[in-house]
Amino acid sequence: MNTTPTQSGIHMANGFDPAEGVALDPAAEQLLRRRDRVLGPSYRLFYREPVAVESAKGVWLRGMDGRDYLDAYNNVPAIGHSHPAVTAAVTAQLERLNTHTRYLTEPVVDYAERLLTKFPAPLERVTFACTGSEAIDLAIRTARYQTGNTGLIVTEHAYHGTTLAAAEISPSLGPNNPIGAHVATIPSIDTARTPADQVGPRLLESVRAAIQQLDARGVGVAAIILDSIFSSDGVQAEPAGFLAPVVDLVHEAGGLYIADEVQPGFGRTGRWWGFERHGISPDLVVLGKPMGNGVPISALVGTVEAQQRFGSEVRYFNTFGGNPISIAAASAVLSVIESDGLVEHAAVVGERMRAGLASIAASYERATDVRGAGLFLALDLGEPDAALTPDPELAARVVNAMREAGILISASGPAAATLKIRPPLPFSEENADFLLETLDGVLARETRSRAGAR
Amino acid sequence: MNTTPTQSGIHMANGFDPAEGVALDPAAEQLLRRRDRVLGPSYRLFYREPVAVESAKGVWLRGMDGRDYLDAYNNVPAIGHSHPAVTAAVTAQLERLNTHTRYLTEPVVDYAERLLTKFPAPLERVTFACTGSEAIDLAIRTARYQTGNTGLIVTEHAYHGTTLAAAEISPSLGPNNPIGAHVATIPSIDTARTPADQVGPRLLESVRAAIQQLDARGVGVAAIILDSIFSSDGVQAEPAGFLAPVVDLVHEAGGLYIADEVQPGFGRTGRWWGFERHGISPDLVVLGKPMGNGVPISALVGTVEAQQRFGSEVRYFNTFGGNPISIAAASAVLSVIESDGLVEHAAVVGERMRAGLASIAASYERATDVRGAGLFLALDLGEPDAALTPDPELAARVVNAMREAGILISASGPAAATLKIRPPLPFSEENADFLLETLDGVLARETRSRAGAR
Repeated sequence: MNTTPTQSGIHMANGFDPAEGVALDPAAEQLLRRRDRVLGPSYRLFYREPVAVESAKGVWLRGMDGRDYLDAYNNVPAIGHSHPAVTAAVTAQLERLNTHTRYLTEPVVDYAERLLTKFPAPLERVTFACTGSEAIDLAIRTARYQTGNTGLIVTEHAYHGTTLAAAEISPSLGPNNPIGAHVATIPSIDTARTPADQVGPRLLESVRAAIQQLDARGVGVAAIILDSIFSSDGVQAEPAGFLAPVVDLVHEAGGLYIADEVQPGFGRTGRWWGFERHGISPDLVVLGKPMGNGVPISALVGTVEAQQRFGSEVRYFNTFGGNPISIAAASAVLSVIESDGLVEHAAVVGERMRAGLASIAASYERATDVRGAGLFLALDLGEPDAALTPDPELAARVVNAMREAGILISASGPAAATLKIRPPLPFSEENADFLLETLDGVLARETRSRAGAR
Repeated sequence: MNTTPTQSGIHMANGFDPAEGVALDPAAEQLLRRRDRVLGPSYRLFYREPVAVESAKGVWLRGMDGRDYLDAYNNVPAIGHSHPAVTAAVTAQLERLNTHTRYLTEPVVDYAERLLTKFPAPLERVTFACTGSEAIDLAIRTARYQTGNTGLIVTEHAYHGTTLAAAEISPSLGPNNPIGAHVATIPSIDTARTPADQVGPRLLESVRAAIQQLDARGVGVAAIILDSIFSSDGVQAEPAGFLAPVVDLVHEAGGLYIADEVQPGFGRTGRWWGFERHGISPDLVVLGKPMGNGVPISALVGTVEAQQRFGSEVRYFNTFGGNPISIAAASAVLSVIESDGLVEHAAVVGERMRAGLASIAASYERATDVRGAGLFLALDLGEPDAALTPDPELAARVVNAMREAGILISASGPAAATLKIRPPLPFSEENADFLLETLDGVLARETRSRAGAR
C-alpha cells in the first residue's frame, strides 16, 4: 500500500480517512457530518485531520479553529488568495455585463491579444473553456480530427483531468478508472534514479515503443500529451531540454505535441510556460488552474494549422468559456503577474527553496532526492538504499506534521512518497525560510520516530 | 439546406456568415477583425449582423451602437443581467475565500442543503462541476459504472454538450461530429405533427427499439438522457406526462434515467424542474446554465444508489467545482428565484406569451405551430401544407428582422425553422406584449415579402 486508504478501495495521497476516527475540531466535525449528508460520494478531503477554512489572504488560510496556515500547496490562487485586483475586476464586470461569445464583446478580444503575446509566434489562436479538463478534452478532439489518428501517448502516472476522455488518459486515477484502448503509456520519467544523460534517451526510446504499439493497434498517433513539469509523475524538471527530441519523433509519426500547462503555466516554474525550459514549441497548449486565480477559466492555445480542421468543420461552443467575468479575472491575474514580476520572483524564491531543501536533504538520509523548477518543488522520502525505496508512510506523517505545525503541503508521485510544495507565487523568502525551518524540525522528529518504531 | 451556411460546411441556425458581406457598425467591424486574428476557428457569432454588446441590465442589452435590445433569448442570466444580488454575493466571497472542496468550507454545504430541498426526496446527493458539459460527462461515467452497461439513448436532434463524451450523444452538432458506437438515437418528438394521444406511445415504441438495438450490439443500456423540454428537438412540452412510461421501460432494461435540466431547470418552464411536468423522478439530474446567472457552475444531483458505485470506487475531483465564489452566485440565484417568485412568474408570463403567440399564429398561415412551457416558447414557421413543411429561410428572416426591431430571439429545432423564445425569467408582461406586438408586425412584413418574392 503506498497511499492513504479512503473509501471502498480508492487510494489517494494525503486523503482523509473517516475510518481512522481522528477527533476533529467541533466546528469541523459538525460541518463534516452535514457535508456527508448532501455531497456526492466522490468527495474527498485532505489530511488526517481535514482543514476547515474560514477565510484566506495572500499565502495564508485562516482555519475555523482560529489558526493561520501557511499555504505552500495551492497553485490555483496563483497571485495570492483573495487578491484585491481580481475582486475589483470581477466586481466591475459583474456590474456591467456577463454574456457569451456569440455576441461581440471587447474583454475577450483584449485578453486574447495580451495572452498570446506570452507565447512563441506560431501559437496564435486561443479558444476558451472553463476548466483544464474541458481544455484537455478539446485538445484531444482537435488533435484527432486534425491528424485522422486516435492514438494518444501519456506517462504511466499522468493526470490530465476528469471528463471521460481526460480520465482515459489519466492512469494516476487508479485501477478502477479505465484507460482507453487507444492510449499507450510510457514509463514515468524518474530523474532521481536515472543518470542525467540517460533521461532524454530513455524517454525517446519509450516514446518510440509507444508509437510502434499504436501503429500495431492500427490507431496511429494523434498526440503525445505531457504535463511540462510532470507533476503527478513526481515533478521531473531536469535536465531541461530532455523533451525536445520527443517532439520531433511524434511529429515524424504524424502526431501533435500537446503541452499540458495546467500545473506549470503562468510563471510557476520561473518561466511563463513549462515547455520553454525544454526549448520547444507545442502544437497545442492547455491552460487552466491559475489562469483566473480561482474564477473558472481555461484555454486551448494553438497554432492555426493544428486547430483549423476541427475549428472549421466541427461545431464547438462553450457557454461560459471566455465569458466577461472569467476574462476579467484572468486579465487581472496577467496584470499582477507582470506588475509584481511574479515569474522572476518564482525563479528567485524557488531557487532559494530548492537550495534549502537540498541542504535539508543532505542532513537526512531518508530525504532521497530534491527536484523542481521555480515554485514547484519536490522532496522524495524513502530508504537510503540503491533503489531509493519510497516511503509513503513517512511522507504522510511529514505532510500531517507540517499541517499540525501550520504549513500546508501534500504528497504526490507514483509512490505517494514525494512531498509536493507548490505555494501561491507571492510566497516570500521569509515564507520560504519558515517552511524550510519547520520541515527540518519535522523531519528530525519523524525520521527519529520511524527509527524508534523499528 | 435548412440552416445558415457559415464556414467550411458547418451549418448553424442564426449564424453570422462573413461571406455575406453585410456592412457592420464601424466599432463592431473593427472588433470583429481583431477577434478573428486571435480567437480559435471554432468561434461563431449570432445574427446576419452580429450584436456587439457594451453592457446589460435586467432583460436589456445595450449595444455598442447605443441601441437597447430586449433579451428574449438568454437563459443563462436567469434572474436578469448584472443582478445586484449576484454581484454582492460574489464580491463578498472574493474578498474572503475562494478555494476547493478538499478543504472543509461552509458555503458549499449550505447551498447543497438548500438546493436539494427543491428535489423529490430520493434525489439526495449533489456533486458540483463547472459546466453542463462536465456534469453530463460525469453523469455518463456514473451511469456506466453503476450499470455495467455502456449504451446510451438520446433523441436524433439532441444536444448535450461539448466534451468528447457529451458531443458523442449530441447529433444536432451535425455530420462532422461523430456519434458514439454505443449510442442509439430515437426520432425527435414532434408534437406539431403527432396526435396528442400518440406522442407517448410512439416515444415508448422508439425507446423499445433503441433498447433492442443496444442489446443486439452487446452494450446494454446504461442510460437514457433526455432534455426535459427537448430544446434542440424544437421544444416539446405537451402532453405533460408522456415521459413516464419511458422511464419504467429503461429501468426494466437495467438503465438509468438522466434528466438534462440544463435548459429547463431553475424555474424556466414554470416549475422548478422540467421533469416534474411529467410526474417522474430521475436517477440523475444534470444542472447548468442558469444555476449561477453566468458564473460558471453546474451540478449532478442524484439518488444515493445511482452514484454510490462510481463515487466510492473511482476518483473524481473537480478543482473549480463547488468553489465558494460559484456557490455564492448560485446561492444568490436561488434566493432571488424564491424571493421574487420567479417560478410562478415564469408560469404566468409564459402563459400570456403562449396565448399571445397562439393568437398571432391564428393570423398567419405560415405560423404553423406554437409550443412551450413557462418562459420557454417556440413558434414554427413553414408551409401550411399537410406536412407543415418547415421554412428555415423565413425563420432566419424573422429572427434578423426582430433583431433589427430591437428584440433578440433565435431559431432552433431539427429544421432550424422554429423561433426560440427564452428570456431571462424577470421578463415582464410589458416585455411580453412588446415582443408579441413586434413579432406580429415582423410576420406581417416577412410573410408578405415572401409571397411577393414568388
